[in-house]
Amino acid sequence: MSNSKFVDSWLRHRLVTVELVDMIGEGGLNFKPWDGAMTLSELVLHIMSSGFQFTNAVKLGTIGKPADKPLISSMADLRKYVHEITESTKATMASITDEEMESLVDASKVMGTSLPGKALLATMRDHEIHHKGQLFVYARMAGVQNPPFFVKHSV
Amino acid sequence: MSNSKFVDSWLRHRLVTVELVDMIGEGGLNFKPWDGAMTLSELVLHIMSSGFQFTNAVKLGTIGKPADKPLISSMADLRKYVHEITESTKATMASITDEEMESLVDASKVMGTSLPGKALLATMRDHEIHHKGQLFVYARMAGVQNPPFFVKHSV
Repeated sequence: MSNSKFVDSWLRHRLVTVELVDMIGEGGLNFKPWDGAMTLSELVLHIMSSGFQFTNAVKLGTIGKPADKPLISSMADLRKYVHEITESTKATMASITDEEMESLVDASKVMGTSLPGKALLATMRDHEIHHKGQLFVYARMAGVQNPPFFVKHSV
Repeated sequence: MSNSKFVDSWLRHRLVTVELVDMIGEGGLNFKPWDGAMTLSELVLHIMSSGFQFTNAVKLGTIGKPADKPLISSMADLRKYVHEITESTKATMASITDEEMESLVDASKVMGTSLPGKALLATMRDHEIHHKGQLFVYARMAGVQNPPFFVKHSV
């Protein structure tokens, strides 16, 4: 898959996450469905930071430092952060060359191995769809009535 | 992606669903996290029937009839069904030729368009990861303590 095709195939999911977060009311921020679960805010930040870190890793050739941890004290903070880091991640991803998609990335810190940029990005995308699925349950339980379809037909 | 690579990339997720269903206790069968949600059993059957129907569609060239609806009255029934339909879906998927991966499938009944077999299977795989993510929340809420990682490293 070429890089521009990959960006679109990722955005078709990411933009659903953005839309869903925009629908969640204030009471949802620290909601968690079982004792010991990530809170809704933590789950969203996990999706965002993984996308950011793995995308940057393909540019760097290795797993770099995570995104700075934002101060989130309201759904407004969370929504603003989600919009901003999505734009930043999208810009970095769009700058990845076809050569970088094929080049090995040292992911030994988190996956115990090196793998081509395109494989790391595909894993990141699966990881994001998985946690977005969880977020749909959180959002419904936190009162969202009409969530979007799980993927956009186009971006 | 060649067909054999696709089968593996799908199985790396499906086998996690099978493992997770095997871990859910009897009380989980009709668990649902909000009023109006699919029950756990319905969610699992939705994953299974979508995988079956979309895989068969690539062989048929069109969306055919859904899998026969099984009679499920216990977790033992659900587990047995999940194992059986996974084997059946895997066998059909393994028989898909590289030519069938490229051929257009008439999916107008469910998606309003025709698309290549490989695109239909990729969408099915995303759909399965999404609902498996939801199932992880259901399973935790139904008492599963140590669920597997969301994807197998190899199959």
